[in-house]
Amino acid sequence: MNTIAVDAMGGDSAPEEIVKGAIKAKNLGIDIILCGDKNLIEPFLQDSQIPVVHYPEVISMDDDPARAIRTKKNSSIVGAMQLVKDNKASAVFSAGSTGASLVAAISVLGKIKGVIRPAIASVLPSIDREIVLLDSGASLEVKPKVLLQFAAMGSKFAEVLFNIPAPRVGLLNNGEESSKGRDLEKNTYKLLKSSNLNFIGNIEGRDFATDSADVFVTDGFTGNIVLKTMEGTARLQQKMIKKSFIENLFKPLLLPVNKALKPVKDRLDPDKTNGAYLLGVNGVVTIAHGSSSAEAVMNSIIFSNKTVESGFISKFTDTISEL
Amino acid sequence: MNTIAVDAMGGDSAPEEIVKGAIKAKNLGIDIILCGDKNLIEPFLQDSQIPVVHYPEVISMDDDPARAIRTKKNSSIVGAMQLVKDNKASAVFSAGSTGASLVAAISVLGKIKGVIRPAIASVLPSIDREIVLLDSGASLEVKPKVLLQFAAMGSKFAEVLFNIPAPRVGLLNNGEESSKGRDLEKNTYKLLKSSNLNFIGNIEGRDFATDSADVFVTDGFTGNIVLKTMEGTARLQQKMIKKSFIENLFKPLLLPVNKALKPVKDRLDPDKTNGAYLLGVNGVVTIAHGSSSAEAVMNSIIFSNKTVESGFISKFTDTISEL
Repeated sequence: MNTIAVDAMGGDSAPEEIVKGAIKAKNLGIDIILCGDKNLIEPFLQDSQIPVVHYPEVISMDDDPARAIRTKKNSSIVGAMQLVKDNKASAVFSAGSTGASLVAAISVLGKIKGVIRPAIASVLPSIDREIVLLDSGASLEVKPKVLLQFAAMGSKFAEVLFNIPAPRVGLLNNGEESSKGRDLEKNTYKLLKSSNLNFIGNIEGRDFATDSADVFVTDGFTGNIVLKTMEGTARLQQKMIKKSFIENLFKPLLLPVNKALKPVKDRLDPDKTNGAYLLGVNGVVTIAHGSSSAEAVMNSIIFSNKTVESGFISKFTDTISEL
Repeated sequence: MNTIAVDAMGGDSAPEEIVKGAIKAKNLGIDIILCGDKNLIEPFLQDSQIPVVHYPEVISMDDDPARAIRTKKNSSIVGAMQLVKDNKASAVFSAGSTGASLVAAISVLGKIKGVIRPAIASVLPSIDREIVLLDSGASLEVKPKVLLQFAAMGSKFAEVLFNIPAPRVGLLNNGEESSKGRDLEKNTYKLLKSSNLNFIGNIEGRDFATDSADVFVTDGFTGNIVLKTMEGTARLQQKMIKKSFIENLFKPLLLPVNKALKPVKDRLDPDKTNGAYLLGVNGVVTIAHGSSSAEAVMNSIIFSNKTVESGFISKFTDTISEL
């Protein structure tokens, strides 16, 4: 039986929103252990009977991740990782500091053999399907060999979790031609071209609206900027639409129109989707926006559970050793 | 009197769409010279009496820009730049290869004294205002000093062209804290902090939807990816909305709703807006998407004219020498 170790203290509305999300997931039959300050967690537990492992320390967004992980050994995120390490849990979920999750995962779980750098894979919405973007912030600056590994990790992730056979891998670049990009992209292009991945070539940001690729590969700096630009653009357009509708539509139309807009807004709202996945470490680690709602927490926990059940980590280890 | 040299041969539907746009601008009282193949341009001239300077060569999107500029001396883009150099025109407009415009501008007009690298400033829509993003593709990899210059150029651009006193300059980064980013961002942060610009700190992609900054500064690789990601996200959301409306709204509502969506789509459509500006060269150079409509061509020419009238280049030269 899988058990998900949930960092109850990470997130803007922790522990309340995290515990609520954990209860929702528990009600769907997923086993959970909550990690964090018992006194702060218990008021929200209701009659859920989710076990709590007491970790009095919290790593905040302002802490330097590396230093915090070294000094706060009794923090909820380190504790959650340790539960996986000790085989008392199968996966970690946290909506706390991404940097802290990353450092804790590397120092407690360790990297998978052969992996040079870990990556954060974000699942982005598209028309009727999912797109995997990586790295969305773990490794800001990387070498071509690392991007090749990211491509392989993202491809395996899309294959196992979304049942896409031979996922189409694209290299995010400033143009389609193979001559485009920095030295990083030019050299990565060659490595990808001669790999056994289903590499479709360079892709651009506008391909988020087309059906060209399943996996978008880039360095962690660019990926993080892309992720937040998508968020910003979606919100900007929503604001513009709202304004235009108020100015141009008869008032009675606003209610049904806003109702029809709602599912689109929700799909593009990172606080409501199922988070991101730390790839390259010895364990399933799911991270989410600090502002995640209870529903997003539940979705991430469900996805963590699905990831564990898929046997992703062992399949993944083979992928890396074959590169 | 200002005259805009228009590269009639650059763009997916050149020369037809370009000439049509030029005629629209001419009808608003702007003086224009068309540069390109006389035989191909004349059929679209109608009775506009726009003078044509014959340049038989065309630089295509597939040409290597640097080599093409060296070998095709009689190309329309080189010719247009030469008209400005010879004081026969005041500005250049092109919807052709960005790389070719860039190389032609540098080799014919030269860089402004003190400018290390040129930048492309893109004007992005926001709620009730404009945002300047630079560099959106001229200089893919840069040093902190170059980003400082970009910030100064973008600030002056927003001040002169959009009448924003002391434009708020933000550094695009993967987080708000000053410790965030690559070495490039960390060091640029320090330079900006001690400059006399109105530097507001690090900003993120999600700030495209907030009223935080007027000028977004980043390197040309990241800026180009951001620009196209905005385009892709806007289109993706439009597709999702269209689908949801068809599924969830009564058919008679679709017509008024789509009519109200139209102005938002148009504002976010790069083919309909007024292009981008090459900053740091000795002349006003406006570049536009290859797929620009006649209306976009007209808008860009109007903006070029406005830029010339603002005395931007001379004000700009002072800014750089003061850095």
